[in-house]
Amino acid sequence: MNPTPEPAAHAGPFEMRAVAVVHSSRTEATDDGWDDETATITLLEPFTTEALRGLDSFSHIEVVYLFHHVDPERAVPQSRRPRGNTYWPQVGVFAQRAKNRPNRIGISTCQLITIDDVTLRVHGLDAIDGTPVLDIKPYLVEFAPHSPVTQPLWSHELMAEYF
Amino acid sequence: MNPTPEPAAHAGPFEMRAVAVVHSSRTEATDDGWDDETATITLLEPFTTEALRGLDSFSHIEVVYLFHHVDPERAVPQSRRPRGNTYWPQVGVFAQRAKNRPNRIGISTCQLITIDDVTLRVHGLDAIDGTPVLDIKPYLVEFAPHSPVTQPLWSHELMAEYF
Repeated sequence: MNPTPEPAAHAGPFEMRAVAVVHSSRTEATDDGWDDETATITLLEPFTTEALRGLDSFSHIEVVYLFHHVDPERAVPQSRRPRGNTYWPQVGVFAQRAKNRPNRIGISTCQLITIDDVTLRVHGLDAIDGTPVLDIKPYLVEFAPHSPVTQPLWSHELMAEYF
Repeated sequence: MNPTPEPAAHAGPFEMRAVAVVHSSRTEATDDGWDDETATITLLEPFTTEALRGLDSFSHIEVVYLFHHVDPERAVPQSRRPRGNTYWPQVGVFAQRAKNRPNRIGISTCQLITIDDVTLRVHGLDAIDGTPVLDIKPYLVEFAPHSPVTQPLWSHELMAEYF
């Protein structure tokens, strides 16, 4: 139990709509080898090339998307072993990046290869074909961590074959 | 006009709810000096300490939040000059990180200082007091850009005093 419940003045619900859609050579959610895939992001109406103006000056973008194949009605456990791997510790849902999570939001920083009209070709996007995109942001080095990064061993092991 | 409208099979609307709330010494949205602020993130019910289990092994987290003071009904221009600064170019809404954007999603990577029960103390979170948090993810170095980053001069100028 949460001993100090917060007042939920701005708890939602908040309504979101896709601004773009992913087309990918991967159609099923599998864990590893994302760099082997090719992917594009195409804006949905009413967005036009004007919304991408100047984006070609950036080498990388952050893509915010929805894990749309995850059933939002299915209860999300507050902790689990990543990928069910018994060699890794039980960790909280906010201490891992698994797709079965509250609000089903995925974030990926990927390389922007080309922009053709309203379609971005990208490298390293870990989203399957048909994924709704909620936002696209330019990657700025100033938003990278400002201090040394540490993370547990299991997370390095999990990521070993991811890209 | 968008010459190749996409079928909007998974366009939404998608409903999201806050999983946590920000408490910050900054109560109004201003542009610069975020590192001078102190901020905490407190989980909302039904989330408990179990959802944070193991997060203390990570030095940094990615916080996904809502720019809740932005009116979602207000039309977002597809391009504008960042901060209205006439020395900077007109750029698309997806080529900048301004808060007045579709779906009002903000993302910030910040340093995790301590965890006390269901409250995280963080450094470098650019969100004002009362901000709804939609997700918390551990920062993994494997998700950083895999190739050299380039970005336009105006974006470095804009970020000069941000943190």
